[in-house]
Amino acid sequence: MQSLETVAIVGVGLIGGSIGLALRSRGLAVRVVGVGRDLKTLHQARQRGIIDQATTDLEEGVAAAEVVVVCTPVSRIPHDVRRAAEAVPAGALVTDAGSTKRQIVETVETNLAAADVFVGAHPIAGSERAGAAHARAGLFRDRVCVLTPTPRTSIDRLERARRFWGGLGCRVVEMSPIEHDEVLAYTSHLPHAMAAALASSVPAEWLALAAGAYRDGTRVAAADAGLWTDIFRANRGPLLKALGALEERVAAFKYAVMTDDEDAIRRWWDEARHRRRLFEARQPVSNQDS
Amino acid sequence: MQSLETVAIVGVGLIGGSIGLALRSRGLAVRVVGVGRDLKTLHQARQRGIIDQATTDLEEGVAAAEVVVVCTPVSRIPHDVRRAAEAVPAGALVTDAGSTKRQIVETVETNLAAADVFVGAHPIAGSERAGAAHARAGLFRDRVCVLTPTPRTSIDRLERARRFWGGLGCRVVEMSPIEHDEVLAYTSHLPHAMAAALASSVPAEWLALAAGAYRDGTRVAAADAGLWTDIFRANRGPLLKALGALEERVAAFKYAVMTDDEDAIRRWWDEARHRRRLFEARQPVSNQDS
Repeated sequence: MQSLETVAIVGVGLIGGSIGLALRSRGLAVRVVGVGRDLKTLHQARQRGIIDQATTDLEEGVAAAEVVVVCTPVSRIPHDVRRAAEAVPAGALVTDAGSTKRQIVETVETNLAAADVFVGAHPIAGSERAGAAHARAGLFRDRVCVLTPTPRTSIDRLERARRFWGGLGCRVVEMSPIEHDEVLAYTSHLPHAMAAALASSVPAEWLALAAGAYRDGTRVAAADAGLWTDIFRANRGPLLKALGALEERVAAFKYAVMTDDEDAIRRWWDEARHRRRLFEARQPVSNQDS
Repeated sequence: MQSLETVAIVGVGLIGGSIGLALRSRGLAVRVVGVGRDLKTLHQARQRGIIDQATTDLEEGVAAAEVVVVCTPVSRIPHDVRRAAEAVPAGALVTDAGSTKRQIVETVETNLAAADVFVGAHPIAGSERAGAAHARAGLFRDRVCVLTPTPRTSIDRLERARRFWGGLGCRVVEMSPIEHDEVLAYTSHLPHAMAAALASSVPAEWLALAAGAYRDGTRVAAADAGLWTDIFRANRGPLLKALGALEERVAAFKYAVMTDDEDAIRRWWDEARHRRRLFEARQPVSNQDS
């Protein structure tokens, strides 16, 4: 990717901060402007080398940007995209990093100016640890970034979004916003919901006897409540469908255990084991965390 | 712990192998005898320094042992304990490493000779990777080992079992076999079942878009089917109760999402997050894997 003059990051948390670090460490931008609500946090991000400039004024922050990446919580993204679209220089690209896409893209596209400059994106990377303090330049390396163009999306902006996210190290794929949300309901939102369901199913007084399976199975339940409430609410339909699929798997297992059907328990487990093995075989070697 | 002359390990897999390595590296036994079904595997274990002697003949293997640890699958443990009990020298201790306890202890205690020498044990440590090739001396360090004495248990054997498992690095706790199984249904068997349920809930063609939450949430689903079929069958009642608790958590979440109740979703998540944080706070620093 050719070096950009100015990139603005709206929301400098784990994702926004990691984008800043990646842009700077790869020499992809001359100047990275961080836009946030809290100047103190922004100054810390500047001290850590995540951004070059800091402002709490979104319009000011994006005024010279060739690319704006909106990394705020999903419920705020459409509003922030619209404000950015109205303040950017002519020709700028506005993209985002939201974990859901249908609601965001639909809302953004009700605004003509925003629709002209926006390409929805979701880099599939993260951590249960929030905040720029946990940001790292390698967060996106070999991770999938889903772009969700629509018939309304500018071909030029789409091409630049591919280059931008690819430049950060992502493997870029494209699908419709609806398809994205259906897939992610299963691959991400369901696993998060199940981590939380499992976490609180074990009585507190017995936690001392929980070991590896509980520890790993509940890791992401330590994530921020507001962030995940937003995501679940923005993807209700597909999430309910995924929960239904999970409930069917649990019910099949319960029936096999209840009837003490050795073959059925073993087949049920083997099917899961096979799916897990398939997942492992498809992982790039570098995907070692989060 | 005073050094033992001879310890026999029946079943030299991940757990049995790690016991052998821990005994040898800590200088706790002069001689470790490995008993198994496959001489080739046993010879490999001897070459790796896990055991000193190998035999496929259980009676021969335990004939000189002061302590016998039975590490076979839970459905085979009562039978192996009984055979060991009938072949050990006078005064020997027979213990096990099974993940369930009620069925094992009840079955063992129907045999007078076995009841005299046996103390049920469950070192809460393991991995989804089976086999002596994955054994390591530090597997038990700072892990809880539950002993499950009954009114039938010899005080002398119980005291020696405490020393034996403590000597391997475990924090030894005691509870009844029934209580053990009730607790472990929640803290271990449920997390394993949920990992498998989650693994196979995600369609194979979408796995490329699964990331950290799926990876960690399904890790233990790679474990051996036979091993886990055995455990689930040996702990049906408590497991069904734990599954019911999980189903209630999922149902509460579904209802909150269905009614788009922001506060209820957030409260549900926060409760899980709090439980996870509690778990983290109680972990010894060394519990970094499995």
